[in-house]
Amino acid sequence: MESVASAPGKTILFGEHAVVYNQPAIAVAVDKRAVIRIKKSSKGVSTFWSNDLGFEAELDIPNKNYKLIKGRPGIIRYVLEILNKWHDNYYRDPLDIKLSLNIPIGSGLGSSAAVTVATLAALFNYHGFPFNKKVLAKEAHKIEKSVQGMASPLDTAVSTYGGLIYLSRNKEISEFKLDIDSDFVIGFTEKKGNTGAMVKSVNALKDRNPRIVSSIIETMGQITDEAKDALLNKDYNKLADLMNLNQGFLDAIGVNTFELSRMIYTARKNGAIGAKITGAGGGGSIIALAPNNALNVVKSLNVEDKGILASITHKGALAKVRK
Amino acid sequence: MESVASAPGKTILFGEHAVVYNQPAIAVAVDKRAVIRIKKSSKGVSTFWSNDLGFEAELDIPNKNYKLIKGRPGIIRYVLEILNKWHDNYYRDPLDIKLSLNIPIGSGLGSSAAVTVATLAALFNYHGFPFNKKVLAKEAHKIEKSVQGMASPLDTAVSTYGGLIYLSRNKEISEFKLDIDSDFVIGFTEKKGNTGAMVKSVNALKDRNPRIVSSIIETMGQITDEAKDALLNKDYNKLADLMNLNQGFLDAIGVNTFELSRMIYTARKNGAIGAKITGAGGGGSIIALAPNNALNVVKSLNVEDKGILASITHKGALAKVRK
Repeated sequence: MESVASAPGKTILFGEHAVVYNQPAIAVAVDKRAVIRIKKSSKGVSTFWSNDLGFEAELDIPNKNYKLIKGRPGIIRYVLEILNKWHDNYYRDPLDIKLSLNIPIGSGLGSSAAVTVATLAALFNYHGFPFNKKVLAKEAHKIEKSVQGMASPLDTAVSTYGGLIYLSRNKEISEFKLDIDSDFVIGFTEKKGNTGAMVKSVNALKDRNPRIVSSIIETMGQITDEAKDALLNKDYNKLADLMNLNQGFLDAIGVNTFELSRMIYTARKNGAIGAKITGAGGGGSIIALAPNNALNVVKSLNVEDKGILASITHKGALAKVRK
Repeated sequence: MESVASAPGKTILFGEHAVVYNQPAIAVAVDKRAVIRIKKSSKGVSTFWSNDLGFEAELDIPNKNYKLIKGRPGIIRYVLEILNKWHDNYYRDPLDIKLSLNIPIGSGLGSSAAVTVATLAALFNYHGFPFNKKVLAKEAHKIEKSVQGMASPLDTAVSTYGGLIYLSRNKEISEFKLDIDSDFVIGFTEKKGNTGAMVKSVNALKDRNPRIVSSIIETMGQITDEAKDALLNKDYNKLADLMNLNQGFLDAIGVNTFELSRMIYTARKNGAIGAKITGAGGGGSIIALAPNNALNVVKSLNVEDKGILASITHKGALAKVRK
């Protein structure tokens, strides 16, 4: 018997940083997925491996530890956390867990949330635990919190539900079906941003300039609300305006960098009608909207940085059991 | 007898674009000057020449025309306009007019306003016309309007008064004494911006996104007001925050470019604590604030673009007559 589940990555379209100050945010699922396959192990020990990431490890589930056979398994902590909590490892029931992943790690596309959601769904199904998406999203968020210390509920919600997730001013999540074919491009640099440091520096800037930064944050909320409508109406020109406006605000609060700015102008020069940082900035990723020009934008980004196509998909977590 | 007058260039520190929507603006005089020397010509024809700009021309004042001897005199139209209006050219009194200029032309440092103010002051003095700075600023603005079609009163006011000029929401000019030694750097690219096109595109963006862009424009006004206090208090850290915040707003409204952004990040990386576009953007210039690091910033800008030191000076137009 094999239990298979998959979950998509996500990208933050609007609201990064503003969300810290109770403004709304929008995340969308992208057509890059984590796929987890679980079956009973024949080796007497649980294993976790991935051809895509080139690693293999033997798991010590009770101690949330592992022995590495090869490679570097960056996301193993999420899987260990899940198995420790939800797998009956005290009864010698070792598992073989295989991860397939076409979400680039560290690109801001939420690979850890996707792996967490997929692993939970596959394991729940393996054990025959009844669950729905609400339970799945909630539990995945808990796992991310245990591993990371803190985590936004947005990532795991998007990986669970797919489509568009709107996080409201009072932290309620609404889900909307949404599909947009290959018009988005994600660009990312080697240089990673430090989310905690960025959040702190925005807060310090706000303390020094309360009136101006409060106005920025409030207007970012306004942008997010207008963007939700533009997305659901597939009004690309409006969406592009809002992305570019939002980018200026992110620059204003100091989370833009030379490299992010280079990617944004490269994307715009090569056919993107809108482009902005996605995520906390200070390094990391941008997202560009390029109807009919997405491949050209990808090509242009690949000269100095990295670019990939990303469609918005309504497909959230999917799970099934094969006999 | 020789009449000599000089006037400084300027830089817009805050309020570009917002000023179009009746928000305040701040311009400051910089220690780069136009010097005009006027004496009676021995040649029987008025001449205008500059070693610094490498040109020489014979003037046909009644027809606002000229015959070129050498070089390309970009700013000759302002001088012709002044002479036509204020010099008694119908009585065969030809003049030799020499321009010395260390304001880079096309750098956004207001070389035409400085030349206009200096020429007017020198000519008024030559003829013994009584004038004060108010008259000078007003007349210089008129000349700029005649030549350019339209012109901001800010440039000619700064070249006349020196120091800091604050243009209020109801278009009143206030002058403040201000000197800041060599902490500012101006960077400029080959690519020039088209002010008219930029103003139009901001207006179109505002029409499409009234609520968001209105909020940006209003907050820019708030930044300008806070910046006036920061400048007069010489609170450089506050000033830097405000420059960086303002830069984000200029990016948001779409007047930033790849080259401007490159200069801004280069300046910040090399010691500038604040950096922003100066002027209408879409090309053109940036200004960076770099206490104790100005030379380093100049050097870094000179790798791909051009950088020069610029101090803020209280010295406005100066005129005297030598026997």
